[in-house]
Order: sequence, then structure tokens, then C-alpha cells
Amino acid sequence: MIVTLLTDFGARDYFVGAVKGVLLTICPGATAVVDITHEIPAHDVEAGAFTLLAAYDSFPPGTIHVAVVDPGVGSSRRPLLVATADYFFVGPDNGLFSYILERESAARVFHLTNQEYFRPSVSQTFHGRDIFAPVAGALACGVAPKDLGERIEDFAKLEPLAPTRQANDTLRARIIHIDHFGNCVTTLTRRELPDEMIAGGVRLEVNGHAINTFRQFFAAASDNSANELFALWGSAGFLEIAADRASAASRLGARTGQPVIAGCGLRIAD
Amino acid sequence: MIVTLLTDFGARDYFVGAVKGVLLTICPGATAVVDITHEIPAHDVEAGAFTLLAAYDSFPPGTIHVAVVDPGVGSSRRPLLVATADYFFVGPDNGLFSYILERESAARVFHLTNQEYFRPSVSQTFHGRDIFAPVAGALACGVAPKDLGERIEDFAKLEPLAPTRQANDTLRARIIHIDHFGNCVTTLTRRELPDEMIAGGVRLEVNGHAINTFRQFFAAASDNSANELFALWGSAGFLEIAADRASAASRLGARTGQPVIAGCGLRIAD
Amino acid sequence: MIVTLLTDFGARDYFVGAVKGVLLTICPGATAVVDITHEIPAHDVEAGAFTLLAAYDSFPPGTIHVAVVDPGVGSSRRPLLVATADYFFVGPDNGLFSYILERESAARVFHLTNQEYFRPSVSQTFHGRDIFAPVAGALACGVAPKDLGERIEDFAKLEPLAPTRQANDTLRARIIHIDHFGNCVTTLTRRELPDEMIAGGVRLEVNGHAINTFRQFFAAASDNSANELFALWGSAGFLEIAADRASAASRLGARTGQPVIAGCGLRIAD
Repeated sequence: MIVTLLTDFGARDYFVGAVKGVLLTICPGATAVVDITHEIPAHDVEAGAFTLLAAYDSFPPGTIHVAVVDPGVGSSRRPLLVATADYFFVGPDNGLFSYILERESAARVFHLTNQEYFRPSVSQTFHGRDIFAPVAGALACGVAPKDLGERIEDFAKLEPLAPTRQANDTLRARIIHIDHFGNCVTTLTRRELPDEMIAGGVRLEVNGHAINTFRQFFAAASDNSANELFALWGSAGFLEIAADRASAASRLGARTGQPVIAGCGLRIAD
Repeated sequence: MIVTLLTDFGARDYFVGAVKGVLLTICPGATAVVDITHEIPAHDVEAGAFTLLAAYDSFPPGTIHVAVVDPGVGSSRRPLLVATADYFFVGPDNGLFSYILERESAARVFHLTNQEYFRPSVSQTFHGRDIFAPVAGALACGVAPKDLGERIEDFAKLEPLAPTRQANDTLRARIIHIDHFGNCVTTLTRRELPDEMIAGGVRLEVNGHAINTFRQFFAAASDNSANELFALWGSAGFLEIAADRASAASRLGARTGQPVIAGCGLRIAD
Repeated sequence: MIVTLLTDFGARDYFVGAVKGVLLTICPGATAVVDITHEIPAHDVEAGAFTLLAAYDSFPPGTIHVAVVDPGVGSSRRPLLVATADYFFVGPDNGLFSYILERESAARVFHLTNQEYFRPSVSQTFHGRDIFAPVAGALACGVAPKDLGERIEDFAKLEPLAPTRQANDTLRARIIHIDHFGNCVTTLTRRELPDEMIAGGVRLEVNGHAINTFRQFFAAASDNSANELFALWGSAGFLEIAADRASAASRLGARTGQPVIAGCGLRIAD
């Protein structure tokens, strides 16, 4: 069984090692542990939710995804298990599974109440090690979700990903992620921007900059166009703003959360 | 068998890959390799010793911990194996296993002298790959400690972790680690500060700042208290100085090694 | 079967997780996935080629090395498989396997043309996930190279690593890599600088600095010599310029690509 980890723990502490040690203690032979990332910005639940959404279905059915971005650790926020047709998700009830739950409408959500599957002594500062890892170990070794806790419906939700349509028929989206290469991932998908709309010419406005070039891939066709910002469909299914071998985020002065306005007849202020 | 790695190698070189390649060459099927961290500050043996102490007993019995923070590589410093009731440790004799040896009094320490278990050609700059990885591979495949070297007693030791009691009945501790979130881990434990003493009111002084709030967990109960520095029991068993969703280290201007004075009647200079 | 990964993906996105998920989907039980590094500087093919060269033969025969530093993803650059006597390499045709191919003269190179082994839907921005990972999975599960594509000879090549001999009998080499500790790895090997030549006294010039001390290992013999720059044989078989517990790169103001002049009678400008 595969268990993945996605956290804001960073790379320089004992945190990730301790989580893996507990997993391998609970369910020794059965577990391949795969890091998705531990570099989610500290306490940034929305960033964690996006990265989990982009990664989860690249894994084989049965995979258990443990996600821990958890500023409320030790408080009354609940520990959760989400079960979809193909995957399990374990982590805090703070919206981290929001985007998964938007997409996977048949998911069941459980409040992890059965302390028998927690570590004997649970700290108030490290539930990744003391609750989420041992519960994931139990799942990996075959324990059923219903034995780990109780069904709930009132789980925490983030602001939805979907762009909104504005009065002047433009779309108001946002930058949901800036990747390692400086590409700006927007919340726009093919649902809002079908191929025929792209073909007809779409213009984006971000932080006062206009982007009206669409490309199929990153490398520039000619030196003339090498310097330009452009939009392309990214590998997670969202429209991205990019620059050839350069950081679009730096050129745009863009930050996560910033609005992206998309429209056909969009006028860009000079 | 599980082999963990803890080093100051960083993430951008071939170093970690080479160590894993050698491990998997010596003991193929038997080995799950788990990274604790490779981001120990370069040459900082004390930081490596602390992180190893915080992580080692989250792993199942039998785990082999390979730790390499080794500024003296190639010199006369000895390669070591430490065997406790539950774990093995492999690395250089420079104090890296000091805190483990403080805690595990029945540990046996071996000088790795049997070159038969080293790589055929040993470089003078990379014993992680050429000595420690192949020896860990041999252990993982069942070779006994006594066949790898000779018992010694005169291993290198760091300054002990335990705080000292001062004339005015205060405790002099230090910051042993600053974690990814900016929490400052002190050397104070429940042995020096039992629950009844915490309940009676403890005040800490660090770098001219006073901390006299104790909390059970990170998240603030109210907005009024959100901005404040506080102490709490961290997940490694040490008292930490923290701030809610902010870096206590930045607020304190704290560095590793800085003194922490703890006392009941402690007067803080204005 | 072991599959290694070497990329410029960084640690904070879903990229590495997605590649591993696909690998484990294609070839579940058979695959141990080992990260060499994901911190190759973005788009720096030469840095990727060097790191792969330094790491590949620490792994057991049969290992499949997946390397993705791929600024031309989605363009007409070809996806490649390189098969040597002991290893497979999978990645883009942009010179990333250049140094391996210099050393492994009997290697066979294949253009990956059989789309049957790609992901059903191939994006134009993430061939690591959609082409290279599934092909590596197929290899790990026993598919033969000839079933994956067609032999080619005209693969892309980088500038060779070997230093050139200049008119005044000095050698012109370059800094090919600066490691995590600030050591500057040059392209000089024992072939150009045999032991008897080192014994006779070799002087290096880099960025206006002269280095004329050679050492066997990093730690200084005395405090007098602790501050000095020196050369030593690094663990990848190249001459490195180093400083004891300090960054030689900072002291030299050195950058990757900078020339290194080596000679016996070398005059250093005052």
C-alpha cells in the first residue's frame, strides 16, 4: 500500500522522519511512503489544498494521502478521514480537502474519534506523528474507515476554486499557485475557457498587465517571442501564465491570491 | 530492515543519491531507506546530534540510523557504530551520538576497523558513501557488530544537554534548535520543570526578552493573545518558545546556542 | 528494480509526487524510487548532466535513471532512452546524457517512439509524468528497449568535459559544479594530472586567485593553514578547490563555467 505525505513541515527538522518512523512501525512491510512535498508555505491551507488536488490522482487506486498543514493542532479542530472511490485522505478539518471534495461528490467524510488507533501518548503539537500517521498505518494494514470514526457532513470548506462570471461577461479568477519555475497557475479551466473560446482570442489581466498570447508549450518558436508572457494549459488542468525560461511571477509582480480577469473583449487600462 | 539518513549534505548534489545507491547495492531487497533530513547546517555536529535524538525512537526496533555531519572526514577521527537495545547508529566519532549515549546508558560503542565491509576504494572526502553506507548495508543484511570493529569507551562527547542550576536557584539552559516554523527549542525538560512548577509560574529570559505565558498548544485562544510569545511542551519533550502562526526566533532575535534562564522569582531587567 | 530521479523540479510542487505516482501505477511492486536530486538549477542541462555522471554508477546494475531537465518540453526535441551495459537512462534529447555517453562508448541510444507506453493523454508541459515515468515503469517491468523506440546516432551533445591543452603547455579547464559546501568542482581528472605531476607541484588560477596547495582531505592539519584555499581530489573523481569548513566559492567569487588554468610553471599575476 502506498502512503503519500504532503505537509508544511519543511526539510530541516525531525518532523518528516518521525511521521515515517511511526507509519513503518504500525504497518511495516506493507507501506511505501512517497513524499509529495513538505514545502507548502507554513500554515497555508489553501496552497496545501491546491497541491494535493494536482497530485492525488497520479497515484494508483488504494493510495492513502496524508496531508498536514495544521495551524490549529491541539485546538478543537477535528482530525478527519476522507474516503473517495479510489483514495483515502487523512488530516485536519480545516479545508485542506476542500478541492478534493468539490471534485469527488460521492466522498464520505469521517471524524477520527477512535483513539485506539492513535499513538498511546498524543502530544498537543504534533498530530502528524501522533494521530494522522498511525491512522494511515492502520488503513494501510486494512482497518476499515467506519472503525476509525464517525461520518460527518459539516466539514470545513475553503472559498471554491471556480471563477465567477461578472456583470460585463468577464470571468474573475485568481492565482492559486506560483510554481518553482515562476509559472502562475490560475483557477481557470477548460470548463470556463473551451477550445473554441481560446481560438477566438482570450485576454487576461493580472496586476495591471495584459496577456493575450496563447501557446501550446513553453519553448519559444522564435527569438522574437522569447521575451513575452503567454498563457498555456498547465499539467494540472489549469490555465497558467508563463514566460520562456524565465519567471512569469517576477515579471508580473504576481502573488498567490491575486485576481485574474479573463474576457474576450477585455479592455486593458493603459 | 529500515535505514535512516541524517546529514548536512543538502539537497542539490549527488551525495544523498550515492549513499542510497551503495546501500541498495550492498543489501538490495532488505532495505527501506528513509531520509530524516539532509539540511543539518553544514558542519554543525550539535544540530545533527539534537535532530537525531528527536527522531530516533519514532522508528521501529532494529532500525539502523546513519548520521553524517563530518567536517573531519579523511583525518584521524574514527568511524563508529553505536548499538543500543533497539537501534544501531553509524557515523563519525565527533560527538554526533552524544545525546543518544547520554540517554541510552547500556549502549555499546564500536570503532569500525574491519575494512572488508568498506567500499573497495575509500575516498578521503566521502565516508558517507565509502564507509558508513556499506557498513549500514552489512548490518541490514545481518552482519554482527563485533564483526565490524572493536569495542571502545573513549568516544567523543559534546557539552551535555542538561541545564545547570545557578547560585540564585535559576536554571541556565540554552536554545538547542530553531525549527522550520521559528519555534525555539530549549534544553529544558519536564525533569527540571515538573508540572507543579509550571503551574506555580515559570518565567524565561532569552536575549533580554521575558516569556511568562505557558500554553498547551499553538493556536491562540483569543485575538488579544495572538501576538504574544509563549512557552509550550514541544513534541520532542523539550520546552519551546513559540508564537501563534509567527516565528518566535525572529521576534526574539534568537540564535542557536543562546542562553535561556528559567526561574520562579526571576526578575527581568526593564 | 530501482528507478532514480534527477530533475530541476524543486521540492515545493506536485511535480515529483506525480512522477512517482505514475511510476508506481505502471509497475507497482517492482519499483524502489530513489531521488538523486530535484534541485538542479532550473533549465541548467549541463548541471544535470554533471550530477548524473557523479551519481549513476553508485547504483546497482539494472538501475533505471530518469533525468528531466527539459526546457524544450512539448517542442520537437525527442524523448530518449540510453542503454549501457549496466544502466538505463530516460529523458529528453538535449545533452543531459552527454557525459555518460562520453564515458560509456558502447551505449545504445533509442528515440522513444512507441506511444503505447506513454500515458493515454500526453500534456505538452510535463513529459516527466506523461512520457518518461511510464516508460521507466515499463522498463522496470521488463519491456525491452527495442520495443520502446528506434536506434538513433545523432543525439544532442554538450561541450565535452575534458580540459584542453594550451600553447604554453597549461591546461584550460572549467568549474563544472559548486556543491552545497561551496567546494568548486573542476573538470580536471587524474588523466590530466597524474600523481607524479601533483607531487611535482601544480598551480591553479581561478578568477585571478592562485591555488598552489594540495591536500588529501578537508580538515586542516594546523590552525595556521585553516584559512587557506586548497585543491583536493573530490569523491566524483574531479579536482576540487576547497576551504576548511568554509565556502571556497565565496572566497573565490567563483561561478559555474568559470575557467580554471592549471600548470607547472604557471605565473600568477600580482
